[in-house]
Amino acid sequence: MNWKRKDLLGLEELKKEEIEFVLDTADSFREISTRAIRKVPALRGRTIVLFFLEASTRTRVSFELAAKRLSADLVNISSSTSSMLKGETLKDTIRNITAMEVDLVIVRHGMAGAPHWLAREIEPGVVNAGDGCHEHPTQALLDMLTIREKKKKLEGLRVAIVGDISHSRVARSNIWGLTKVGASVVVAGPPTFIPPCIEKMGVTVKYRVEEALEGADVVMALRIQRERQGKNLIPSLREYRKIFGISRERLRLSKPDALVMHPGPINRGIELDPDVADGPQSVILDQVTSGVAVRMAVMYLLCGVGKEAISRQLSAVSKKQKAESL
Amino acid sequence: MNWKRKDLLGLEELKKEEIEFVLDTADSFREISTRAIRKVPALRGRTIVLFFLEASTRTRVSFELAAKRLSADLVNISSSTSSMLKGETLKDTIRNITAMEVDLVIVRHGMAGAPHWLAREIEPGVVNAGDGCHEHPTQALLDMLTIREKKKKLEGLRVAIVGDISHSRVARSNIWGLTKVGASVVVAGPPTFIPPCIEKMGVTVKYRVEEALEGADVVMALRIQRERQGKNLIPSLREYRKIFGISRERLRLSKPDALVMHPGPINRGIELDPDVADGPQSVILDQVTSGVAVRMAVMYLLCGVGKEAISRQLSAVSKKQKAESL
Amino acid sequence: MNWKRKDLLGLEELKKEEIEFVLDTADSFREISTRAIRKVPALRGRTIVLFFLEASTRTRVSFELAAKRLSADLVNISSSTSSMLKGETLKDTIRNITAMEVDLVIVRHGMAGAPHWLAREIEPGVVNAGDGCHEHPTQALLDMLTIREKKKKLEGLRVAIVGDISHSRVARSNIWGLTKVGASVVVAGPPTFIPPCIEKMGVTVKYRVEEALEGADVVMALRIQRERQGKNLIPSLREYRKIFGISRERLRLSKPDALVMHPGPINRGIELDPDVADGPQSVILDQVTSGVAVRMAVMYLLCGVGKEAISRQLSAVSKKQKAESL
Repeated sequence: MNWKRKDLLGLEELKKEEIEFVLDTADSFREISTRAIRKVPALRGRTIVLFFLEASTRTRVSFELAAKRLSADLVNISSSTSSMLKGETLKDTIRNITAMEVDLVIVRHGMAGAPHWLAREIEPGVVNAGDGCHEHPTQALLDMLTIREKKKKLEGLRVAIVGDISHSRVARSNIWGLTKVGASVVVAGPPTFIPPCIEKMGVTVKYRVEEALEGADVVMALRIQRERQGKNLIPSLREYRKIFGISRERLRLSKPDALVMHPGPINRGIELDPDVADGPQSVILDQVTSGVAVRMAVMYLLCGVGKEAISRQLSAVSKKQKAESL
Repeated sequence: MNWKRKDLLGLEELKKEEIEFVLDTADSFREISTRAIRKVPALRGRTIVLFFLEASTRTRVSFELAAKRLSADLVNISSSTSSMLKGETLKDTIRNITAMEVDLVIVRHGMAGAPHWLAREIEPGVVNAGDGCHEHPTQALLDMLTIREKKKKLEGLRVAIVGDISHSRVARSNIWGLTKVGASVVVAGPPTFIPPCIEKMGVTVKYRVEEALEGADVVMALRIQRERQGKNLIPSLREYRKIFGISRERLRLSKPDALVMHPGPINRGIELDPDVADGPQSVILDQVTSGVAVRMAVMYLLCGVGKEAISRQLSAVSKKQKAESL
Repeated sequence: MNWKRKDLLGLEELKKEEIEFVLDTADSFREISTRAIRKVPALRGRTIVLFFLEASTRTRVSFELAAKRLSADLVNISSSTSSMLKGETLKDTIRNITAMEVDLVIVRHGMAGAPHWLAREIEPGVVNAGDGCHEHPTQALLDMLTIREKKKKLEGLRVAIVGDISHSRVARSNIWGLTKVGASVVVAGPPTFIPPCIEKMGVTVKYRVEEALEGADVVMALRIQRERQGKNLIPSLREYRKIFGISRERLRLSKPDALVMHPGPINRGIELDPDVADGPQSVILDQVTSGVAVRMAVMYLLCGVGKEAISRQLSAVSKKQKAESL
């Protein structure tokens, strides 16, 4: 297939085939990061803007490395350095940046829908790197890439997502994505963490974590976002851990080869026990590795380079590197 | 002509021919940013330092992109990260940076004359990216490039600059530049915003904005710099807008095809009404686009690469890209 | 010899031959920074992470330029942008970063031993860019490179280090390094600045600066680190200057061609008089220049490229640049 979208705003709007196409493209980019020379000239001379209006290290670095490994030029704009401090509107800031002729804007914003509005305003492509409690599509794609790599499929799997579903853009994007490719999703958490009508998204709700874990192929724990959530949704972190934390005992309820996932950063000993986070079933660091590949794929597709070009370019690069290493 | 200056400190010191040479060079670089591969190897392996001691987004990003599109290596130093926090003098900081063998230092500083002092102290070239209320030469050059592109000339044009002339380095650089190339400049603003003896710079002063706009080919509104000016120079922003703000009605006093310009960031509804800022006569975003081209030209000339090399290199690059795209 | 270490954590652990090998490699890289095109493709496609948990300009910029001149991809992580603000452990942060497939982590940390712990935890190489009051090996290596360049040898030289020896990682690394290559080191400072049992490191202690300077080939003044030291170790800065500051008169006690060194940033008029810092014997800016070369060498060696490759690559690059400049 050919990629036809200008933007990647969320998994809600993507078709199953589009999701699978991004994952396939990511698969072909994954190998680049494992080479001695972790770089291809695919996006040389393209300009990518990281426009992060919420603090972030891992997501920013993941996008940065993806851009650099594709040889794109990268400009970082964060809220603290932005002219918006001088009272400029978001619209003026972004129109100014795009007037400098850029190809892609990666935006993280505290308000749901900000990237969608931006995508309508500007000509370059827009990637949603997290908007409020709404979507975080590249995170869900990297989760799906990780699961698919380990389980060799997505269809028919049972995925348990445990934690603060209400405030989690990671959960929301994963639910859209996983249900579209035929996985079944169970969510679990305290009632204050489960949004009303969530069943309409095609998931099953459990209020006891044990029921959610039962028979699961994948257990995804969400971060208790102390900085985001209201303060009185759970009695205490200790209580949360006792009732919903993923311990070794609880993990035994899921399939013996179930994957343990977490979008990070982990609150060790709250949503995940350390021996689970670092245990043999954990693929948390594989998720991070997959993240670079997924972001390379998304940048590559949105910068408008046709699919046929990939294999041609990759093989040309291997030849060139072989020649240079002589 | 051959470029012979080590530094670009202001338009006051440049001759008409030098200004036109920079604009011509910028014209030849403008096209690069519109290519699919927005990059030439002109300054590969050169080191450019951005030394910004005042906050900035758009100017910093503009210089960054200019450097990247010329393939230069770029180092960012801002006041908040600088050793000057450890009590080091500006002189020691900059001598240390230049001891690392750099080619060009782009400096923004709150004090008028700081870049001039720096230029005498260090061997690498210095570009003034704004010094206090003194000069901001690349801004004036990009303004002139924009006007020249739209009006096909600069000589004989009537340019009205409206706002806080006293505190505006943008106004000062534009006055030096525009009068040298034969444009006539009218400035307008409240008496507290008009510096004494400004007529000696070759401009006409009007205290009513209507008189300044009459017959203008270009209307340049300046930002009310709330963070820079003393607090009691104007009664209120509302009053300023009423008497000096550029509205659609007032704009009708200028020529029907007059250009509307603003150095940004705009205070919408104060110095410029939104429908003027976004209207058909506005070239505000063209200014931003021109900015990258002007900064590429300045970097290129100050890094000492001869003019004859430009066309040779540009054509070589096109050939190479053609070859690579096969 | 072949470089076999994964990490550069301190000079304490290095053998004399290893120190000299790094200095020799640095010598061969020094010339690159003086070219018109200050860049070689040696580390193209390698990923280097700057993980600075203490503020720094000069050291960070020096590492940045070293990486860029070797064509490596660079990612900057500082404490203020780190997820550690979200309560993540240092271990999780660094494991996440390395899961993105990186080659080298340059770390500065306020706690002695942090880089050593890190080096055991992660697969990529680790360079200690300063850990608390412990070691700062690349600083000592650049000091030694500068001395060797000026004096054509290190063995047999008499080096006086003056100042706050107790809190200085620069002093500690220099003592390890200089004594290993056969120089003799004298330290001087107020008793509160001299750590107990320092003689065990192979140095002579003097409590009068005049005795330390006598017959010295090299005089290295340390920075009074107002931000690091406890407040009551010296009566006053004025008193310190009077008794330990390096003035022109005091410098006459050392050899007539003695080198004056300082790791920077200088407190002018405290540990060094301005006319000494800027005088004919000062090699302070040479130290900065050597810093880039040493860091290029360290990055190059730790990224695992064999020594034989250096000369081959350097000569290939010269040929290529010659071809391109035609």
